[in-house]
Amino acid sequence: MNHPAVLVNLESPHAFWRLSAEHRRTLAEAFPEVDFRVVAEEAVPQQLAEAQVFFGWRFNPSWLPAAPRLRWIASPAAGTDHLPVAEAHAAGVVLTRSYGFHGRPMAEHAMGLVLGFSRGLFTSQRAQRERAWWKDDLAGEFFDLAGATMTIVGCGSIGGHLARAASCFGMRVVGVRRTLPETDADGITWVHTSAVRQAVAVADVVVDLLPATASTTDFFDEELFSAFKAGAVFLNLGRASTVDQSALLSALDTGRLRGAGLDVFDPRPLPEGHPLRHHPRVVITPKSSTLSRTYMDEAVAFFTANLRRYLAGRPLDGVAELPAVHSPLDGG
Amino acid sequence: MNHPAVLVNLESPHAFWRLSAEHRRTLAEAFPEVDFRVVAEEAVPQQLAEAQVFFGWRFNPSWLPAAPRLRWIASPAAGTDHLPVAEAHAAGVVLTRSYGFHGRPMAEHAMGLVLGFSRGLFTSQRAQRERAWWKDDLAGEFFDLAGATMTIVGCGSIGGHLARAASCFGMRVVGVRRTLPETDADGITWVHTSAVRQAVAVADVVVDLLPATASTTDFFDEELFSAFKAGAVFLNLGRASTVDQSALLSALDTGRLRGAGLDVFDPRPLPEGHPLRHHPRVVITPKSSTLSRTYMDEAVAFFTANLRRYLAGRPLDGVAELPAVHSPLDGG
Repeated sequence: MNHPAVLVNLESPHAFWRLSAEHRRTLAEAFPEVDFRVVAEEAVPQQLAEAQVFFGWRFNPSWLPAAPRLRWIASPAAGTDHLPVAEAHAAGVVLTRSYGFHGRPMAEHAMGLVLGFSRGLFTSQRAQRERAWWKDDLAGEFFDLAGATMTIVGCGSIGGHLARAASCFGMRVVGVRRTLPETDADGITWVHTSAVRQAVAVADVVVDLLPATASTTDFFDEELFSAFKAGAVFLNLGRASTVDQSALLSALDTGRLRGAGLDVFDPRPLPEGHPLRHHPRVVITPKSSTLSRTYMDEAVAFFTANLRRYLAGRPLDGVAELPAVHSPLDGG
Repeated sequence: MNHPAVLVNLESPHAFWRLSAEHRRTLAEAFPEVDFRVVAEEAVPQQLAEAQVFFGWRFNPSWLPAAPRLRWIASPAAGTDHLPVAEAHAAGVVLTRSYGFHGRPMAEHAMGLVLGFSRGLFTSQRAQRERAWWKDDLAGEFFDLAGATMTIVGCGSIGGHLARAASCFGMRVVGVRRTLPETDADGITWVHTSAVRQAVAVADVVVDLLPATASTTDFFDEELFSAFKAGAVFLNLGRASTVDQSALLSALDTGRLRGAGLDVFDPRPLPEGHPLRHHPRVVITPKSSTLSRTYMDEAVAFFTANLRRYLAGRPLDGVAELPAVHSPLDGG
C-alpha cells in the first residue's frame, strides 16, 4: 500500500468539471505519500499499468486487462450507468460513485421548476410575444406555495435538501420511502411506499427522485397518475425508467397534470418531434439539475475522504452495486 | 360614530379578489354595531349617500359629490395609482391602501424568476422544441444561488420577505434603503442609497422594489446599469417609472445583463412588437407578482384592523400620500 499510484483523468470543456491546479495542490498536500499522475485521456491506457487507483469521469472496460494493479475506480459522477460496473467487479476492481453534494443544486433546480409553474412564468414566457395581456389566465392557473403540499417519492438525502427549500416557502412536505427513517427529520411527514397513492393524492407538487431498480420501472404509471390531485405539477429529477411516458402524456392531455418538469426522459436526447418536447405544459431540462460551479470542489472532497479510507484499508463509500444502480434506499 | 354605514363593493371574476360569504360573516361578527352594505358597482353611487366608509377596488371621483358623509375610502390594493387620491383629499376623505401581505407571493414570484434564469429554465423552455441538446449552453450560463449575492434596491418589508427566501438558498443579501434600519434584520447587509453603485457591483441578482417617487424616476439608468457586475440578472417588481427602459435594453444587448424579469413596464400592456416583449433574455409577467389565493383574506384582515382604529377615532394605517405614491421608506 505504500506510495500508491493514483491516475487522474478529469477533463471537460467546463471548468467546474475539471481538476484545477488548486485541486492538484490540495490532493498533493493531503497525501504526500501518494504518487498522483494527472493525464489526458489518451495517456490513460498506458499509465494504468502501474496505477492502483483511477479517478475520472470515463473508464473504458477495454482498459482493464492492461491494469493489473488497479483496485479502485473512483467516479466524480452520481450515476454509474455509463461505467463498466459489472466488468470492474469481475476483474476484482471496486467502482465508486460520488454522492452527498447533488442535493443542493437539485433543490434549486426543482424549486425553479415548481415556481415556474406555480407563478405562471412558463406561461408568461410563451404568452409575452403573442398576447397583450394574460393576467386573467394566470389568475386562473397560479397557486401559492405557502400552504401547498409537495410529495417527494424516493425521498433520501437529495429529497431532504429539497424538503428544506420547499419548507422555506411554507410548503408541507410528504416523503415517500421504502424504509422510513426513525426521526422526523426536516419536518417531513413520512409515508411508506405501499401508501404512495394516498401520498400523491394530497400533493400539489409530486417530485420523482426514485432510483432506477427493477421495482421502480414504470413506477409512475396510468394507475398512479390517476391517483394524483387534479391540477398537480409533476417533476422527474430521478431516472427516466421510473415513469411510463405514455401515461405521463395522457395525464397531461386529460388535464390531470397542470404541468411536468422533466430533467430525465427516454431516449436522451428526445428525438425531433417527440410529443414531450412539444407539449405546451412540459418543460424539459437537459439533465442539468446537478449543474454546480462547485461540483469538482465537492467531488474532490468526497474522493479525498474515500482515499483516506482506501489508504487505511477501510471500506470505501459509494461502492456501485450490481446491477449498476443506486441503492433503493438512497432515493436519488 | 354610532351605527356607521360601511359600503362594500368588492367584485372580481376571480374568487380570491372577491368578498366571500365567510368574509361577510367575519366582518358582521367582529363589528355588530356597524351596518355593512355589500353592493354591486352600479349601486355604489346611490348607496354612498349614507356611507361613512367605502371598502372597494374602484372609486370614481364623480361619486364624491353625492357622498356627503364619506370619511374614508379603503382599498384592498397595495397601489393607489388608479384611485382619486387628490380628489378625495380635497373633499376631506382619507384614502388608505393595504400592505404587509404582498411580500410572501412577491418573494415566490421573484425567486421563481431568479431560478428561471440561474438554472437555465427559460433557455430550456425555448430550446426544447428546436434543439436536441443544449446542456453545454446551460453549463456556460447557469449559476449557483448558494454563495451568490442578491441586492434589493428599495428594501422594505417586501424586501425582507424576499431576503428570507433568498437566504434559504444560501444567497447573501444586500439591502439598499434611504433610511437604514437600526438592527441587522434578516441577515441583510444594509447599504445607503447613496452607495447603490457599490451595492449593485457585487450582485449576481439585482431586484428593484423602489416606490414611484420624484426621486426614483429613471433611477436605473445607463450609468447605474454600467455599474452592474457583468452577467447579472435584473428584476423589477416595483414600479415601471424607476427604470429607463432604453438603458435596460442596451444593458441586455451589450451582455451586461444576463437577463431581466419584469413584472412592471411602461406602457402597460406593452404594445405589439415592443423590443422588451421579444428580447430573448427578457421574461415579462403581467403584474402578477402579488397574485395569491389568500389575497382577500389578508385584505379583509387589514381592513378589520383599520376599521377598529376608525371606530376608536385613532389614525388609520396605510393612508395614501399626495401625490399618490408609496412611502419611499416602504420599498415596495
